[in-house]
Amino acid sequence: MTGNCLVAQSGGPTAVINAAACGVIQAAFRQTAIKAVYGAHNGILGMLNGRLFDLGREDSATIAGLRHTPSSALGTCRYKIEAAAQYDAILRTFHKHDIRFFVYIGGNDSQDTADKIHRYALDAGYAMRVVGVPKTVDNDLCATDHCPGYGSVVKLTAAMVREVGLDTEASCSTDKVNVIETMGRNSGWIAAGTGLARQAPGQAPDIILLPEVDFDREPFLRRVDRLLETQGRCVVVVAEGVRYGDGTYLAEGDGPLAVDAFGHRQLGGAAIVLKTMIERELGAKTRYCRPSIINRNGIHFASATDSEESYRLGVAAVRFAVEGHSGVMTALVRRPGKGYRCDIEAVPLREVANQERPFPREWIVAEENRIDMDRFRAYALPLIQGEVAVPIEDGLPVPVRLRKHFVEQLHE
Amino acid sequence: MTGNCLVAQSGGPTAVINAAACGVIQAAFRQTAIKAVYGAHNGILGMLNGRLFDLGREDSATIAGLRHTPSSALGTCRYKIEAAAQYDAILRTFHKHDIRFFVYIGGNDSQDTADKIHRYALDAGYAMRVVGVPKTVDNDLCATDHCPGYGSVVKLTAAMVREVGLDTEASCSTDKVNVIETMGRNSGWIAAGTGLARQAPGQAPDIILLPEVDFDREPFLRRVDRLLETQGRCVVVVAEGVRYGDGTYLAEGDGPLAVDAFGHRQLGGAAIVLKTMIERELGAKTRYCRPSIINRNGIHFASATDSEESYRLGVAAVRFAVEGHSGVMTALVRRPGKGYRCDIEAVPLREVANQERPFPREWIVAEENRIDMDRFRAYALPLIQGEVAVPIEDGLPVPVRLRKHFVEQLHE
Repeated sequence: MTGNCLVAQSGGPTAVINAAACGVIQAAFRQTAIKAVYGAHNGILGMLNGRLFDLGREDSATIAGLRHTPSSALGTCRYKIEAAAQYDAILRTFHKHDIRFFVYIGGNDSQDTADKIHRYALDAGYAMRVVGVPKTVDNDLCATDHCPGYGSVVKLTAAMVREVGLDTEASCSTDKVNVIETMGRNSGWIAAGTGLARQAPGQAPDIILLPEVDFDREPFLRRVDRLLETQGRCVVVVAEGVRYGDGTYLAEGDGPLAVDAFGHRQLGGAAIVLKTMIERELGAKTRYCRPSIINRNGIHFASATDSEESYRLGVAAVRFAVEGHSGVMTALVRRPGKGYRCDIEAVPLREVANQERPFPREWIVAEENRIDMDRFRAYALPLIQGEVAVPIEDGLPVPVRLRKHFVEQLHE
Repeated sequence: MTGNCLVAQSGGPTAVINAAACGVIQAAFRQTAIKAVYGAHNGILGMLNGRLFDLGREDSATIAGLRHTPSSALGTCRYKIEAAAQYDAILRTFHKHDIRFFVYIGGNDSQDTADKIHRYALDAGYAMRVVGVPKTVDNDLCATDHCPGYGSVVKLTAAMVREVGLDTEASCSTDKVNVIETMGRNSGWIAAGTGLARQAPGQAPDIILLPEVDFDREPFLRRVDRLLETQGRCVVVVAEGVRYGDGTYLAEGDGPLAVDAFGHRQLGGAAIVLKTMIERELGAKTRYCRPSIINRNGIHFASATDSEESYRLGVAAVRFAVEGHSGVMTALVRRPGKGYRCDIEAVPLREVANQERPFPREWIVAEENRIDMDRFRAYALPLIQGEVAVPIEDGLPVPVRLRKHFVEQLHE
């Protein structure tokens, strides 16, 4: 099969999703089966309305620069396809532009969309290859050891928690408690990752609250109080999506905009709720930090391991597509034995689509309500190794921006 | 004069206040006039209750490591001396331990305390030298070109704003507005500093709100709305202390803990207030980030220029003290002409104490309510140059901690 290749990004940006795009684009340029390489402007939206741009017209330095540029350089969206007619529209776009290789970089919603496009093309008799590339800071995709974006968000957030821990140690004659809110609507992977900051007992974080464990007010306050008594200070890490036993979010949403197109509640405020609770109930001066989306874009302190894996997954996606795979996602498979190494395999999109992998129950020591850090550390520590080399100009990291030469919107 | 030297830290931690302490300690070790070098545990509190530790018993590698350790390694406090009897207590501590050189690293409240100790010692006929070293991320000390801690917080915050700007460019098909709250109770220096993130028109930040300019709801909303129309997205930077014309804070405090020992209101929530306002009034999906004290401790992306200046100010403080100065603060004086260079001079503490230097009115273009970036950039850009080299172990920056060998609490 020969034809053109389309690459698209979807869902929340990360520090390394552009590294995956770079891998796809550079690999596609090298394939003789692939003629032109296009990008979709804002993911599925660009595919629906024919907004594609020619990546062959970008400078090669710009393409290479994607490896140190955070966010989603192609543009992204959160859009859920509802009607079959929309798949028709996408296939018409593909047909018009002779798209035979489609690589979709995204999380579980996006892998579901990729799976549906793959099936729809099969049913419609349109010959093409669809390959997904995993991406999500939430690390909640099934069928891959971990997800690109996760290592970088953990590296930065753990560094911040360690730094705030030092602040708390120094300031606790007045400011006794710090609460740091992490991303993580349904999964505690990021919050758990901040446990890597702790080098010795008594260091931050003292308490980590995961969405996988029901929040229980009284035991939580007793635990903070005990820490204030024994060490005079406390650092709490709370995932944004922590809930009470009845399913109510600790951070209640606010109004109609609190639900996105996929029906997910948009949260914001678990940390400020805890701050108010601790000050009222325990009388301890409490501060809160909510870096939020800052942390998913933190190329200034991103994991080189994460970035390289993301790039390799992009390269592999093109290889799998050209070799004839479709309806698959490139996945990281950790080799057993000493030393960290991941192979890349193709797994069926159906095994990934619309599923979530929560933080493993067996890594939570239930009676003490804490994470088994020995087990978690063995898993997570390799993912934050190395720092992405970022060009600095005038004291700040310099990203690249695609020029986006849009291709003509051919009429039927 | 010969005797012992005491160094203390006060107020909020920064990424580089330990670099100043390192300068003081290493310089004091080299002075023959200085016998022992002590640290005060938690600033003025340690001086009041005689909790001093012997810095001569720390490893020299630990002392050197202070240059890449954020927060306040000696311990800090926010404590306002109210009674003259407390100055007596401090002088008794000094006398017992033969403290003849006292270096106090802190902001305007601390420089006021240092000034009072200097005067009190003079009145009491206790021969000693008191020298202040400036420190504050707020950059609001008078009589110095800028304050150590400021360059680093601006470097990190501007990097974050640039990264969030890229996220907004990519995501604005759904998430149109991002609000980022910076520290800055009374001064807009940090918020203004994020303007360095913008390399070209249309890039973040689009709007910067300073405490020095009254917040006016309707023009603000109109400005956001216009940006949504023209570019489809908007990044707002808001200093935590932004106020309405009647003096009400945009972020109202919450209860009795909202006022600290100096009578300053503790704020938290300008960003969430703006997020709610924009979503309600303009119907545009808005996110907010509030990194808060994360940013004052960000050694993982701190300014080498800032760190080196902080170190040099500490070294100079000891030199001035040994040369006979007292009641002074070491200050940065920018040399005129091309190229950036600062000299260090001694300025009277009285010129610094209890004053605040707001962001200059003449750098604000009133009719457009924006910062004159040409003028501000010339001032601020040199301060964020270079990155502090931080040792990394297991993927994260590794700080040092002092062992704090407390000296015997001698009885009178």
